[in-house]
Amino acid sequence: MDARLPEVSFPARLAEPGEGIGMDELALAARNHGMPLEALRYDVTPTGLHYLLTHYDIPVVDPDRWRLAVGGVVTRSLELDLAGLRSRPARTVRVTMECAGNGRARLLPRPVSQPWLVEAVGTAEWTGVPLREVLTEAGVGPAAVEVVFTGADHGVERGAEQDYQRSLPLAEAFGADVLLAYEMNGAPLPPQHGSPVRLVVPGWYGMAHVKWLREITVADQPFTGFQNAVAYRLRREPGEQGEPVTLIEPRALLVPPGFPDFMSRTRVVRQGAVGLTGRAWSGRAPVERVEISTDDGHTWTDADLGPHPHPWAWRPWTASWRATPGRHVLVARATDATGRTQPADQTWNAGGFANNAVQRVPVLCDG
Amino acid sequence: MDARLPEVSFPARLAEPGEGIGMDELALAARNHGMPLEALRYDVTPTGLHYLLTHYDIPVVDPDRWRLAVGGVVTRSLELDLAGLRSRPARTVRVTMECAGNGRARLLPRPVSQPWLVEAVGTAEWTGVPLREVLTEAGVGPAAVEVVFTGADHGVERGAEQDYQRSLPLAEAFGADVLLAYEMNGAPLPPQHGSPVRLVVPGWYGMAHVKWLREITVADQPFTGFQNAVAYRLRREPGEQGEPVTLIEPRALLVPPGFPDFMSRTRVVRQGAVGLTGRAWSGRAPVERVEISTDDGHTWTDADLGPHPHPWAWRPWTASWRATPGRHVLVARATDATGRTQPADQTWNAGGFANNAVQRVPVLCDG
Repeated sequence: MDARLPEVSFPARLAEPGEGIGMDELALAARNHGMPLEALRYDVTPTGLHYLLTHYDIPVVDPDRWRLAVGGVVTRSLELDLAGLRSRPARTVRVTMECAGNGRARLLPRPVSQPWLVEAVGTAEWTGVPLREVLTEAGVGPAAVEVVFTGADHGVERGAEQDYQRSLPLAEAFGADVLLAYEMNGAPLPPQHGSPVRLVVPGWYGMAHVKWLREITVADQPFTGFQNAVAYRLRREPGEQGEPVTLIEPRALLVPPGFPDFMSRTRVVRQGAVGLTGRAWSGRAPVERVEISTDDGHTWTDADLGPHPHPWAWRPWTASWRATPGRHVLVARATDATGRTQPADQTWNAGGFANNAVQRVPVLCDG
Repeated sequence: MDARLPEVSFPARLAEPGEGIGMDELALAARNHGMPLEALRYDVTPTGLHYLLTHYDIPVVDPDRWRLAVGGVVTRSLELDLAGLRSRPARTVRVTMECAGNGRARLLPRPVSQPWLVEAVGTAEWTGVPLREVLTEAGVGPAAVEVVFTGADHGVERGAEQDYQRSLPLAEAFGADVLLAYEMNGAPLPPQHGSPVRLVVPGWYGMAHVKWLREITVADQPFTGFQNAVAYRLRREPGEQGEPVTLIEPRALLVPPGFPDFMSRTRVVRQGAVGLTGRAWSGRAPVERVEISTDDGHTWTDADLGPHPHPWAWRPWTASWRATPGRHVLVARATDATGRTQPADQTWNAGGFANNAVQRVPVLCDG
């Protein structure tokens, strides 16, 4: 059946020096979207402003006919419907989610894929049933090593036709806050965020949070599916096995101050006191420090960190700046409790993943 | 104050031959977004999937402190708050909205601006107070010729600092379905769609539907503000006065059949019967004909039109196709009751507006 797929599905590649964004990358950018950075002002991102990445199409899943099959290395296979899932004790977790490819479009050379700049992030309150409750009910066998999640979204990637599938190591799958989520911000999941049920894995990049979930398989072997073994690996060269992409690296983002020019998106501020605000997060540990530079990283001062009652969500921060006429570049840098911080320059890999180089915000103070 | 704005705000320009999408265009594409075309399946576009274009930033407007000033050539100036607006008789209208720049990124040469392909569209149910009720209450003077609408969004465009402003001719402003809308799909407007109140002008391209509305001014002179007199004009050459961009041209779009390749977005279908569905609309008159081609426009057959109970919304259509192994290009073409139809090739102008060239959907049938 797949003999002709190579005619329309090509190997991964890097852009040539000076090559602009292509029509293929633009087609992805036009349908997926980042979070407009002024929306960093919200503790919880309003629905519709949260970043969105769909590998294939948003599938049609009828909530009334939806079933979740739980099988593999388990004592008893389960088939859950939505009413059954909703009848179990629920948990709500506030989670900052970020696409593993955030920042890709600024890499040199640029991996040709979804061309994110820096805005592929959002925070939502997810409500659902802890995955471990369902796994415990099914009875995970002693041979189990991973749990594989299958979505209803179907497509082709680099010649491989597939349903979207990702696995988690068993210990991760038993995390207290890993959810089979059926609500986002207190309402049923919108179609584009995985209706009726998706996986939420706090701290992990977005590829782990399988949308339109239809099957859970407990496996006694490491999963070798496309999204784990081929995509979402950190590789310098195409042939390498590479390390898997997992937890979110620390990042701070500024609410761009002042107002923008429509086309250049350069910010304009007035002379005098300018309040700077933003958010910072890490999937590995709480953010413990945010530093601000108003001179493109030559000098830094500590920002004031706000409270952090939701450990999986971003942390607010504030700083003040006295703008003087001229051009400035603002930079923010987060450091988490493990000591991980953000590099000034790119951390390049062939997939363009987990790049957390600092955001640079050009500003004109027009006096 | 504006002496330095030309450093960051540049004249409109056309891309050079072969020039890829630039980082400025990508920054717009990453924050704005189209409607993923599989969402054509919904009569009303789920919130978050409707296309979105924000010229500057999404402003912060507190609904409790929001006031709408109505003034100019009126008998009595008004100041309305949200409770006052909500206490008046409401009207709900289903409206298909499209960005005037839809299709711009495929133009040759390409006007450098928001780089839409073909997906800048969406349909919503807007609820609010008919504008004419408020205008009548204020008492429009005999000298009035236009109504000017001012939003709370502020930025710079081609060197001009401005609040977003647009005018409507007086007769249009008195249309029965022109709304001061405070609900979208039965819920308060999301921030990105103009919270708490926006203008909705059925049949017009998106630039007329002023978001974050804060002021209405009845004017005795034609409005010469930037968005009417400089932007949103149909010009072949920069110096021309140009015709204003107004009503939406007819367009049909296909739900892309089968499933996509992630990167090329080419569709893959199986051999045999393939149901084709889509939507068609025109801001000028009801769509009366949709034709389908499965051979890139060489031959055409009529699609079956569905019912059309909401005159300002898109009309569904269906067609059938027997796919044979190989490469195909599907095309749909709408014609409205005025006889306006879609050209096979671009209708070029320097702003890239009102281009309704037919959509071409490449498909691989893999046998």
